[in-house]
Amino acid sequence: MTAQARDHRRLANAIRALTMDAVQANNSGHPGTAMGMADIAEVLWNDFLRHNPGDPDWPNRDRFVQSNGHGSMLIYSLLYLAGYDLSLDDLRRHRQFGSRTPGHPERGITPGVETTTGPLGQGFATAIGMALAERRLAEEFNRDGFPVVDHFTYVFAGDGCLMEGISQEAASLAGTLGLSKLIAVYDDNNISIDGEVGDWFADDTAARFRSLNWNVIAEVDGHDPVAIRAAFEAAHASDRPTLICCKTIIGFGSPNKQGKEESHGAPLGAKEVALTREALGWDYPPFEIPGDVVAGWDGREKGARMQAEWERMFAAYGKSHPELAAEFRRRMKGEPSPALAKLVKEEAAAILGKPAEDQPLRKASSRIAGLMTKAAPELVGGSADLSQSTLAWTQASRSIRPGDFSGNFVHYGVREFAMSAMMNGMAAHGGLVPSGATYLVFSDYSRNAVRLAALMKLRAVFVYTHDSIGVGEDGPTHQPSEQLVALRAIPDFSVWRPGSELEALIAWDESLRREGPSAMVLARQGSKGVDHRPGDDEKIRKGGYVLSDPENGAAPDLVLAGTGSELSLVRQAAARLEAEGVAVRVVSVPNANVFARQSGDYRSSVLPRHLPTIVVEAACSFYWYQFLGERRRIIGVDRFGESAPGPEVFSHFGFTVDAVAEAARNLLAENGGATAAPA
Amino acid sequence: MTAQARDHRRLANAIRALTMDAVQANNSGHPGTAMGMADIAEVLWNDFLRHNPGDPDWPNRDRFVQSNGHGSMLIYSLLYLAGYDLSLDDLRRHRQFGSRTPGHPERGITPGVETTTGPLGQGFATAIGMALAERRLAEEFNRDGFPVVDHFTYVFAGDGCLMEGISQEAASLAGTLGLSKLIAVYDDNNISIDGEVGDWFADDTAARFRSLNWNVIAEVDGHDPVAIRAAFEAAHASDRPTLICCKTIIGFGSPNKQGKEESHGAPLGAKEVALTREALGWDYPPFEIPGDVVAGWDGREKGARMQAEWERMFAAYGKSHPELAAEFRRRMKGEPSPALAKLVKEEAAAILGKPAEDQPLRKASSRIAGLMTKAAPELVGGSADLSQSTLAWTQASRSIRPGDFSGNFVHYGVREFAMSAMMNGMAAHGGLVPSGATYLVFSDYSRNAVRLAALMKLRAVFVYTHDSIGVGEDGPTHQPSEQLVALRAIPDFSVWRPGSELEALIAWDESLRREGPSAMVLARQGSKGVDHRPGDDEKIRKGGYVLSDPENGAAPDLVLAGTGSELSLVRQAAARLEAEGVAVRVVSVPNANVFARQSGDYRSSVLPRHLPTIVVEAACSFYWYQFLGERRRIIGVDRFGESAPGPEVFSHFGFTVDAVAEAARNLLAENGGATAAPA
Repeated sequence: MTAQARDHRRLANAIRALTMDAVQANNSGHPGTAMGMADIAEVLWNDFLRHNPGDPDWPNRDRFVQSNGHGSMLIYSLLYLAGYDLSLDDLRRHRQFGSRTPGHPERGITPGVETTTGPLGQGFATAIGMALAERRLAEEFNRDGFPVVDHFTYVFAGDGCLMEGISQEAASLAGTLGLSKLIAVYDDNNISIDGEVGDWFADDTAARFRSLNWNVIAEVDGHDPVAIRAAFEAAHASDRPTLICCKTIIGFGSPNKQGKEESHGAPLGAKEVALTREALGWDYPPFEIPGDVVAGWDGREKGARMQAEWERMFAAYGKSHPELAAEFRRRMKGEPSPALAKLVKEEAAAILGKPAEDQPLRKASSRIAGLMTKAAPELVGGSADLSQSTLAWTQASRSIRPGDFSGNFVHYGVREFAMSAMMNGMAAHGGLVPSGATYLVFSDYSRNAVRLAALMKLRAVFVYTHDSIGVGEDGPTHQPSEQLVALRAIPDFSVWRPGSELEALIAWDESLRREGPSAMVLARQGSKGVDHRPGDDEKIRKGGYVLSDPENGAAPDLVLAGTGSELSLVRQAAARLEAEGVAVRVVSVPNANVFARQSGDYRSSVLPRHLPTIVVEAACSFYWYQFLGERRRIIGVDRFGESAPGPEVFSHFGFTVDAVAEAARNLLAENGGATAAPA
Repeated sequence: MTAQARDHRRLANAIRALTMDAVQANNSGHPGTAMGMADIAEVLWNDFLRHNPGDPDWPNRDRFVQSNGHGSMLIYSLLYLAGYDLSLDDLRRHRQFGSRTPGHPERGITPGVETTTGPLGQGFATAIGMALAERRLAEEFNRDGFPVVDHFTYVFAGDGCLMEGISQEAASLAGTLGLSKLIAVYDDNNISIDGEVGDWFADDTAARFRSLNWNVIAEVDGHDPVAIRAAFEAAHASDRPTLICCKTIIGFGSPNKQGKEESHGAPLGAKEVALTREALGWDYPPFEIPGDVVAGWDGREKGARMQAEWERMFAAYGKSHPELAAEFRRRMKGEPSPALAKLVKEEAAAILGKPAEDQPLRKASSRIAGLMTKAAPELVGGSADLSQSTLAWTQASRSIRPGDFSGNFVHYGVREFAMSAMMNGMAAHGGLVPSGATYLVFSDYSRNAVRLAALMKLRAVFVYTHDSIGVGEDGPTHQPSEQLVALRAIPDFSVWRPGSELEALIAWDESLRREGPSAMVLARQGSKGVDHRPGDDEKIRKGGYVLSDPENGAAPDLVLAGTGSELSLVRQAAARLEAEGVAVRVVSVPNANVFARQSGDYRSSVLPRHLPTIVVEAACSFYWYQFLGERRRIIGVDRFGESAPGPEVFSHFGFTVDAVAEAARNLLAENGGATAAPA
């Protein structure tokens, strides 16, 4: 090993020491990965990574993602050593309550952590979304002499990440699109939690990635800085995404536990820590880093210089392209497009000014999404191979294709999970607001990515059409019932199920203003238009509201509440009952999550607990009990659907005007009848 | 083309005609795939597939799975033509209410359909589970001269299946294990719903599968019977799983729509159907199959002969190995092991006979699973790389390894989705009852497979440990909150969250008796033992029951209900309140799905609606309102967790004896106080 390599090793050993010490101090954590990848990380961070520890938000920084997030002490050590706003005390409190160094890296908690990782494979796919965002923004903003968006995306991944199917989905799309500024490092340490991987993971990973159109640099010694440096240099020169396969030793340095699963997920133990210090030649007490090592790592000055160069270039760009520069600043800050507010106001007026049209709600939503895409160029649509049937493809859509990133629509292929994680990556990168569509039932394929979007509070819109048994002939495999409630259960997720064009408009508007992800749940089948009154547009923002009360001003005998495609059904049933002399209130709940967060007084004013109430929603019913008193009936779908034309299925499950009206009469009769006599 | 090839084509055209006609007649369906794969299917079914249309349950039949299930008219046509109990009238009613030919193939609806497909990629993974079951059962039951289990598993898959990540997970494991009797056919037609796939799917699929240790037969003309036949012959000779890559033309035969997305998911139209008939030289009216074609397809006689040969062999086997033969029959019928009933009785008595032990519920469950595995050799455990931390690995576990299928434990690797779908395949194959473990939060990776298990009513046990914020330091990415309610929402899924060793015993017992899948949701952290009284074992089977009422026979002032690890917490809080003179009922709800199905009277007898009631469950709370009257408080977790030691997190979220007791006092005070004066 050269003298240079020895210096590298000493720097890398700082990561190993901090990792051992933090895990030992808190008696919890995963030392193996950080100790195994320390040499690779040292070369990447000190020789290649363009970033500024003083400004983690520098728009043109390289993105670094540690997909094998359990080894979080790697990234925490790197951030501390490079000079980010993270202290030794923060490291000392690894995995303790309220610390900035939680068990897995969390975006928003630790400066410099680009995305929350831990659920395996997702950091890898999220990084690919970041790399796609970089290409898309470069296409939009770069001008001759002004490469304002021009950075690499690096991702570290372990065996677990590459076993997860999402890695295949994302890698296949990255290879197809040719995302050449993506560089992934595979930590090939031959160990997963069950032990040596040979009995369950015998892929030729290099060949696999070559088959996906990647540039693969195989058989790199992950403990040889010279080899590592050469690999990154080759990766930079590639016209395809690169996978660097590094052979490493998990828990490197631990005389008795390296190369074994024992070093993966538990403290090494005080005795082994001491032996490891000795083996590494690391003579310092816990959490003490000697001055030469501190100096060797400190990236603040270099980072500030890099960013200053970029800022100078950007200032010149601002002079020659002032509008582009202003737009770039707005976009990277995540400020909503000013054109949106105007559009929403005008569209609301237009919708309120004409009779509502009978149409599928997916179509109503699609028209609005198209208008918004024109008003807000940060919107990047897409679909998991269902562009036409979800109507995700709008009048404003232009395809992003291999070698052409100028479009605004991603054809993700049949890859719901990668789509969702890549959307997270685009949102986390900044500058873009992704939406992506599939059928509601297939939200199940991607739930954990949606969960991470919510945990990270990323602005992204998950569009789910074909939202109930109304799907019809495709049958129970394609008819969701439990998915709606399952999505509503995700904390901090905003689930819209608009029942009218106006509700779809407000749903999109709120979704694009919100800090955090939203879902747009939309029916495939047509439904009758629902007319609104002025002011409804603001009421919709409360998630649930009184759509209509009895015309004559009478107190309602009964409440009929509905969402999505069932809102028009409820409206029709109400008209029938009103003709019979029943005083009916119609309530619409386009976003039950938002409604649930309103004050108890407001909720009771909309759904008075004493009034007989029927909720109609073609989905799992138990969600609704929280809002209702004892006089209630929920018409829902608590079993699997049926393959038959949609109207027949709806009828079979009791979603007809007749059935809702009859249920209402029965509920009223059980509760003393209507106050008004039947007409 | 040879004369033989021309005969093949005529037979294959029967599939094309039936497909066009059924889709046209019902104005709904997917003609393209069936028309494209007809030639391949014809060769496979007429020259290779060993099956008996007269007995779809023949244990040693080859398994055939159509993973690209949208093209269901392919399998329906095949089943009809081969002579299964399926009529032309059934085909005429494709996708109509109550028909036996629903939109996607559904196990249990159509004789000969081995597994429900449609959600892409899953049929492929499920077939791999079947192939694994075959190897495992062969190892267990075959004896010299008696290959009672010796069949192939065939699966057809399209571009969509291979884009889905689950295909990677399952293919990687199949290659690693060397499942040589698995033969997959890739329908490489270059089309998915968004159009020609090149812009989103440019994998070298042959190279990809070679990298996964598959035998790949590339570039087969999927319309040339000679080439197809040669491919299957080569596949049969392989010592690895085989992928046959067939170039096909989607919608083959349709002059204006073949090779295009237009033929994928919509009727061709009357005019194009007529043109296609002409192009194919098919002169017969809709749904009419000429006599020579009927004869060419009829597989009943050959099938009956094959099965009769096998039955003769099995009869001889029964003479020389009577116990094995009886066991094989029992297993293939899915009858629970008689030893289980005895075991459960004895264990229940043993548990009731000693003080309850403080321990993690995952450990209590693991001990029982180990005992049951010894009593019921059909149990095959496994884990997605978490054998030790989930405690899925029991004292009875032996690994299944590449080339050694004698074990009873599958190391699935970090592949939750493939694990779940492969479990479905093992259960659908028959003879085995799979269980598979991961952390509860990662159930999200595999939900759609669990859903299919429920839709198919397969006996499988999904074990989910680390079931709440109690996970501790790993933080919010690893702490489930919404997963429990999301699983309970799946129709026909039985979700157990046992709170004691006795409840774990009954949960396993019920799960192994049930027709349909179950989940076992288990805490990582330790909890105090909960003592039971004789008879509780039977009460547990009702899903929810009164664990204890006030000792002095007083009517309860208050109900405290809990599940899982919170049951012991509730018990302790009750003891504290009782010491203060409050008369407390403690209710345990180890399976809310089962409890929900009890009569209203029973539910009210356990949870009287007028009594102040507190439910304590470290999960999303809204689930519980359905069971409660207006005097209620739910202590749940409706936001993301925190990275910190488990007890601190629990305390932060209000899961302590103090906090529960205080909530109880407050609720009582709001409702007029306890009837008894405080002590």
